[in-house]
Amino acid sequence: MNLQSLNTPAALIDVARMNHNIARMQRRLDALGVAFRPHVKTSKCEPVVQAQLAAGARGITVSTLKEAGQLFAAGIRDIVYAVSIAPGKLPQALALRRAGCSLKLVADSLAGVDAIVAFGREHGEAFEVWIEIDVDGHRSGIPPEDAALLPVAHALVNGGMRLGGVIAHAGSSYEYDTPEALARIAEQERAGTVRAAQRLRDAGLPCDVVSIGSTPTALAAEHLDGVTEVRAGVYVFFDLVMHNVGVNDTSEIALSVLTTVIGHQPEKGWAIVDAGWMAMSRDRGTQRQKHDFGYGLVCAESGDVLGDYLMTTANQEHGVISRNGAPDSDIERRFPIGTRLRILPNHACATGAQYPEYVALGTDGELTTWPRFSGW
Amino acid sequence: MNLQSLNTPAALIDVARMNHNIARMQRRLDALGVAFRPHVKTSKCEPVVQAQLAAGARGITVSTLKEAGQLFAAGIRDIVYAVSIAPGKLPQALALRRAGCSLKLVADSLAGVDAIVAFGREHGEAFEVWIEIDVDGHRSGIPPEDAALLPVAHALVNGGMRLGGVIAHAGSSYEYDTPEALARIAEQERAGTVRAAQRLRDAGLPCDVVSIGSTPTALAAEHLDGVTEVRAGVYVFFDLVMHNVGVNDTSEIALSVLTTVIGHQPEKGWAIVDAGWMAMSRDRGTQRQKHDFGYGLVCAESGDVLGDYLMTTANQEHGVISRNGAPDSDIERRFPIGTRLRILPNHACATGAQYPEYVALGTDGELTTWPRFSGW
Repeated sequence: MNLQSLNTPAALIDVARMNHNIARMQRRLDALGVAFRPHVKTSKCEPVVQAQLAAGARGITVSTLKEAGQLFAAGIRDIVYAVSIAPGKLPQALALRRAGCSLKLVADSLAGVDAIVAFGREHGEAFEVWIEIDVDGHRSGIPPEDAALLPVAHALVNGGMRLGGVIAHAGSSYEYDTPEALARIAEQERAGTVRAAQRLRDAGLPCDVVSIGSTPTALAAEHLDGVTEVRAGVYVFFDLVMHNVGVNDTSEIALSVLTTVIGHQPEKGWAIVDAGWMAMSRDRGTQRQKHDFGYGLVCAESGDVLGDYLMTTANQEHGVISRNGAPDSDIERRFPIGTRLRILPNHACATGAQYPEYVALGTDGELTTWPRFSGW
Repeated sequence: MNLQSLNTPAALIDVARMNHNIARMQRRLDALGVAFRPHVKTSKCEPVVQAQLAAGARGITVSTLKEAGQLFAAGIRDIVYAVSIAPGKLPQALALRRAGCSLKLVADSLAGVDAIVAFGREHGEAFEVWIEIDVDGHRSGIPPEDAALLPVAHALVNGGMRLGGVIAHAGSSYEYDTPEALARIAEQERAGTVRAAQRLRDAGLPCDVVSIGSTPTALAAEHLDGVTEVRAGVYVFFDLVMHNVGVNDTSEIALSVLTTVIGHQPEKGWAIVDAGWMAMSRDRGTQRQKHDFGYGLVCAESGDVLGDYLMTTANQEHGVISRNGAPDSDIERRFPIGTRLRILPNHACATGAQYPEYVALGTDGELTTWPRFSGW
């Protein structure tokens, strides 16, 4: 197997870039004096996660119990499931814990805690639960000063569960693109979560873990006083959305889609490739950012950006490559049928999810298939 | 396994609705006097395709050679790969033909034909090729009156390949939403493709097949004189995009995502569910249509539409359900934690692709797992 003969489309991981990204984040969080618990929802791929752990990460974050099960089977015990658990999934969580997985759950409501307590008591299991804090009105969680925080915490403890700590994610950090704004939302995430932890401790409740994080805030925080661990996911590959946010250069994007030119509409300046939205995902995350990259930024097969060529539109298995701005009247000669290109994606988590496997491109040019799991 | 205990999120196929959709399209094309060759890219699922064939379809259309290989292995021989083939995929196509698959290829350029001819001659294989016709400037193909049509056809025949016919897809039909506009684009698709066939025949070239189709044009065409077969894909499930186009009612949508409520932000009128964009796909196809359904339309677990509740935003594993228009101040009591809902998708092809399997809900309430393949 070599790059020149690889079937297209394929999801390529540039291992040198990935290792650079892993080292960059680990170095930064070491310097900030906090533990790092990467979010594996981006890759869902054991070799990637093992590289993160080998570089110093402690434990992992998952977005599904499928991820927990797959990575526990690969020998990883310290796992937080960072989504409020649906009551119907408690038997799966119990089975993982009984098998030896140190699985931590998340809750942000009395009703959610009541379901965990009832099930835990019925089965004699003291689940460890972290309370989700809402630091930016983005999604889930209890705001730091909200009256509901202490009743939820007391219900957990009185119900015989283990209150492990607090967890927050400033998802709105993706909406900013200046260092000042990113530093501000990072501090808001830190301060709000630490405040919630303080309220628990002031009430005599335990709160060992203060867990925060997103790729932008992890890279923008000026200090992390009071925080015990940070979570981040997409940094491992980076992507065009994160490039627009301002936290990576395009030369740091480790995931790309290898594709082949299959046709042209020369008078429109189009080359047609065999990667459409099935290969890129439907994610158009850069659409409302400062630079709209369409369905992706075009690179040569080597991985070097080719200038201002984008995948401007996509059908299921057809992508249209054209020059941003003026049409390229010479596109048929520039990219003849059979030309192989690499497309940098808007959103690595979404693009990776379109593939049952990655192809890892090693520093020596060697290719290795890395399986990827999906589903729930 | 029953609906009430099924793990969420899950991709449910309502088999009664699917069978209704299959019968509706087959009846219509029977009445129009043309063969029907469904596009399997929507389902990528053998039981669905077998139901289409059992109802009268003749052969299938595929968007990838993976689909061709999987369905040939299931016993289906008559297959057209409706994407211009990348030269690097010719060995795969050859292997399928040598194994007994009647695989037809598509080309729309001299360079594409030259690659097929060179490879075919080298391996002593007379590939059957259909020439793609561009009837609406939507994507690929040679316009019906274009000077390139005859040279491409002659190059195929003179190169020893078999010219099987012409094939077109009026992809722009998705952009219309009135019966008049749909009838007009359907006639444009028919007339352009028949005209291209006539030009080939006038030049003494063979053109047995005149293949057209899309779900909207197949349902809108007033007659199909000169056409030999129609292709359509998404009709098997239908979706909200097609609903906006005007070809199906929401009660005909056969694919939905089963999900569970995991939390609330009551003051915002939000219920949070365990289906995010990973479960729905990032497809926001209704965004620029007359009715924007967000990430999907909310139904009860039974499948009945609940009124004007949408999945308004989505993160990877979180969906936000809210009432379109005025926030529902009572949402916490309306949809308590643990409530199970079904979400109708924007685009069935994209949503199905997020799952390794469907769960088929039979008319008797019985559930069956139907595997789905993916990748290339």
